[in-house]
Amino acid sequence: MPVALHHIVVDTHDLPALARFWTQALGWSLLSEREREIVIGPDVHAPVGICFMPVTGPKAVKNRLHLDLTTSASDRDAEIDRLLALGARHADVGQTGDESWTVLADPEGNEFCVVRPKTTLVG
Amino acid sequence: MPVALHHIVVDTHDLPALARFWTQALGWSLLSEREREIVIGPDVHAPVGICFMPVTGPKAVKNRLHLDLTTSASDRDAEIDRLLALGARHADVGQTGDESWTVLADPEGNEFCVVRPKTTLVG
Repeated sequence: MPVALHHIVVDTHDLPALARFWTQALGWSLLSEREREIVIGPDVHAPVGICFMPVTGPKAVKNRLHLDLTTSASDRDAEIDRLLALGARHADVGQTGDESWTVLADPEGNEFCVVRPKTTLVG
Repeated sequence: MPVALHHIVVDTHDLPALARFWTQALGWSLLSEREREIVIGPDVHAPVGICFMPVTGPKAVKNRLHLDLTTSASDRDAEIDRLLALGARHADVGQTGDESWTVLADPEGNEFCVVRPKTTLVG
């Protein structure tokens, strides 16, 4: 078996606060909590979770990796409002405003996008 | 339903080359390929994939988000060798060498770790 994707690791200043934001954002659960490592995921059997680990340096540039979140078309505006209420903010990464996605940032400035509902077409 | 994690998006210079590295690394498939967006995943029904999108600027600092990959204990050394042969390289992010994980970087310098086999203990 090749390696498997296990965690998306986020360098974090305030681990409990950022983990709380993302559990609430995604409806995920806290899977493990230690002083220097908090893991969240949909459940303990899900293949992929998010792991928060401490960092000392400030965020300096736009992240080269970011998360795309999807939702249903009917829920999209309400979900963006909910994320903003949880502590997200709008982020400017040079988008024109004509894109089909909305760029937000989490409370530590990590950019993420809320995209149109998932399609799985190949081509 | 809250937003769902859909894609990990990677700002990329050479989309086909980096997508090829990661499909081979993870044993994933190419799910869609367009000039400015390549998506890979375990299969079209999997909740989480990786999406490569173009970027112009060079990578300047250690990524604040990175991927942790897991493997079986018996496969670990062979898997690291396989990843290096695919185009990964060892990366220095200040680790001491005593860690339980090995830090590598993909062909565009994005750091990732090969960690010890997954545990799901809460505590």
